[in-house]
Amino acid sequence: MRVEDMIFISVDDHIVEPPNVFEGRMPAKWVDRAPKVIRTDDGNDVWTFEGTMIHNIGLNAVAGRPKEEYGVNPTAFDEMRPGCYDVNERVKDMSAGGVLATLNFPSFPAFSGRLFAQCEDKDFALAVVQAYNDWHIDEWCGSHPGRFIPMALPVLWDPELFAAEIRRVSAKGCHAITFTENPAALDQPSFHDPYWDPVWRALVEEDMVMNIHLGSSGKLVMTAPDAPMDVMITLQPMNICSAAADLVWSRIFKEFPTIKVALSEGGTGWIPYFLDRLDRTYDMHRNWTGQDFGDQLPSDIFRQHILTCFIADPVGLALRHDIGIDNICWEQDYPHSDSSWPNAPEELVRMAEKYNVPDDELNKITYENAMRWYHFDPFAHRPKEQCTVGALRAEVAGHDVAIRSMEKGRHANAERISLGEMVKQATA
Amino acid sequence: MRVEDMIFISVDDHIVEPPNVFEGRMPAKWVDRAPKVIRTDDGNDVWTFEGTMIHNIGLNAVAGRPKEEYGVNPTAFDEMRPGCYDVNERVKDMSAGGVLATLNFPSFPAFSGRLFAQCEDKDFALAVVQAYNDWHIDEWCGSHPGRFIPMALPVLWDPELFAAEIRRVSAKGCHAITFTENPAALDQPSFHDPYWDPVWRALVEEDMVMNIHLGSSGKLVMTAPDAPMDVMITLQPMNICSAAADLVWSRIFKEFPTIKVALSEGGTGWIPYFLDRLDRTYDMHRNWTGQDFGDQLPSDIFRQHILTCFIADPVGLALRHDIGIDNICWEQDYPHSDSSWPNAPEELVRMAEKYNVPDDELNKITYENAMRWYHFDPFAHRPKEQCTVGALRAEVAGHDVAIRSMEKGRHANAERISLGEMVKQATA
Repeated sequence: MRVEDMIFISVDDHIVEPPNVFEGRMPAKWVDRAPKVIRTDDGNDVWTFEGTMIHNIGLNAVAGRPKEEYGVNPTAFDEMRPGCYDVNERVKDMSAGGVLATLNFPSFPAFSGRLFAQCEDKDFALAVVQAYNDWHIDEWCGSHPGRFIPMALPVLWDPELFAAEIRRVSAKGCHAITFTENPAALDQPSFHDPYWDPVWRALVEEDMVMNIHLGSSGKLVMTAPDAPMDVMITLQPMNICSAAADLVWSRIFKEFPTIKVALSEGGTGWIPYFLDRLDRTYDMHRNWTGQDFGDQLPSDIFRQHILTCFIADPVGLALRHDIGIDNICWEQDYPHSDSSWPNAPEELVRMAEKYNVPDDELNKITYENAMRWYHFDPFAHRPKEQCTVGALRAEVAGHDVAIRSMEKGRHANAERISLGEMVKQATA
Repeated sequence: MRVEDMIFISVDDHIVEPPNVFEGRMPAKWVDRAPKVIRTDDGNDVWTFEGTMIHNIGLNAVAGRPKEEYGVNPTAFDEMRPGCYDVNERVKDMSAGGVLATLNFPSFPAFSGRLFAQCEDKDFALAVVQAYNDWHIDEWCGSHPGRFIPMALPVLWDPELFAAEIRRVSAKGCHAITFTENPAALDQPSFHDPYWDPVWRALVEEDMVMNIHLGSSGKLVMTAPDAPMDVMITLQPMNICSAAADLVWSRIFKEFPTIKVALSEGGTGWIPYFLDRLDRTYDMHRNWTGQDFGDQLPSDIFRQHILTCFIADPVGLALRHDIGIDNICWEQDYPHSDSSWPNAPEELVRMAEKYNVPDDELNKITYENAMRWYHFDPFAHRPKEQCTVGALRAEVAGHDVAIRSMEKGRHANAERISLGEMVKQATA
């Protein structure tokens, strides 16, 4: 298949929230208290919420910059590509990258929206979550029908309110919600506690996908405070592997047999080994641990409930049938540092050729699986032949995608940094 | 290749220490204080050390028992196969299982010997470590030359004493030492601290292999206290993956270019994905993290320094060339619950046939790599033709290997147990 004729839907990209998210969306009494962007004395744009300042990590907005300028320093809007925070520019960047549609995770509220859960005033926090969701669904996604799979933030502190929010956003056409890879790490009841049952019930009834992004527990896999940053970057997918084990062995999939969970940015190359380990654990230990999946194996349970995705993962592509060809989606990760934008389609096709992936399987991975799992139909908004890499790129032929240094170049001199240092900066 | 003609060396089996380990090996003033076995009121045999009671976990000694009786209850010697703790019986079990030689990890001192490091009186603790090592090398391994790869315990609390012990045991013919997968988890300086340099220097000079067994940090990968046991069992290899990342990105391999580390019971199926992730991390982030491997990639560094092993791992066998055919060993894990003793050779050969592993590669995996990495030559003690599965089994033709219930059967009614419960029992 020629790259130009392919269709790409990314199930994991990221928004850097623009300053106007909450404008006109908060009750009058809370307008002044809503999260807002301020500029710091040293020239960074930061979100503030209830006295907390949330820096945007440099790696979260590096699309279009040379690798030499990657770093973890806080950034300002004028140091980013406008596509990071401006939806009209984002859609142009998507088209220039050959990507039809994307599902976008939040930045300053954290992947699971846990920032808002920290607020003591829960009425106010709920208003903030709902304002964010309305902005995301109506403005960010709504402004370009068929180009975004909308995804709402959860109400992390109350399963009944969470269930109500699921129903509210579902009525607005949103069929995805983000959550944490481990609620116990947020000092909440774990996946094994019936506490969350109202949520599972609402997800089943509304047929929505729960998306758990790596890092969404707020716990990094750290070996030691003085370990080089590279250790943490390498190990990031490990928490999501824990989440997968937690869910497969939990009562959730047994009691809510149509629940669907996406492991966002989780990668795929580890999954064949993981599925073997699940099945071997079941074979060796079920007699004393009391697990019972009837005539199925835990690997079957995994495939029935869990959607996986990858950015660039040769092992996952080579072993795609050991994972499940209907369980794999592609992701772009724009504008993060792991993204190959604007050449991600070419990167995938090179790998697919190496592993002889036939066209029908490639189509499942690049868009068909995403459409089915998320009940998302972009072709209702745009004829299919205008959805290809070639057609999208032709539409924005003049759009500038050159990789270039930013004028300020404040990242250019990023010092070698330890993990402890990075965490300190990021949470300062 | 016919199973009978193959040769098997296992790089990860386990000793359940018999009561006489310290007999005649402690200075007179400390004889009464040495670790000893006592029988509890409820009929369990437990080791005691400095007021601590160390139960033997049931899963650690289940060789020869039906899966229905696996459990985590403490056990008594008369509930185990004698091969767990009696070296003459062990060698018969090895022969009956077709296995020529094994490397054995400790049980009650913990994989890294950290029990002894907890003792305040460091002079006494050093005497205990040395007595254990002498017993292990001279009695356990020494009684059957060519059947065991000896491995010593470390002096965890002092790098200079540790280095001295490395030299002492090396002079006795021991070329392997056990350590922890993460010293920082034991409140010690991390792998990134020059604190351990005397140890690396001694290992290089004596050309010894450092063996880090999964679980040796004493930290389990726990998602939540109420998670089912199955979650923890599934996730056990994860800490070893952290250790591999920690080591590859550390200064150790850069400054001590001939250091060798074995990831014991670490499995292999996750490694191709892990190596891709290492190289991608290097490609994307080296400019700002400051890593520099010259004209090599981190995956090259991994293969130069790290030995991997597996019990039964179809993905690892399928992707053996992505791991490195010279980096893979086989392990039996006797007498733990993950072992397929006495039919492990047949299990491996079934898998090898499925993945068309040629004889020369299979030989590397089943014994040649172990001989080379550990400088171990069993054929100096026994003609090669008497080292095969067929020859060994013929020697112990009458040896009873039937899987059977133990008379007491106290495990038979093991209740379904949560992870928190298990940890409580194990550390009670």
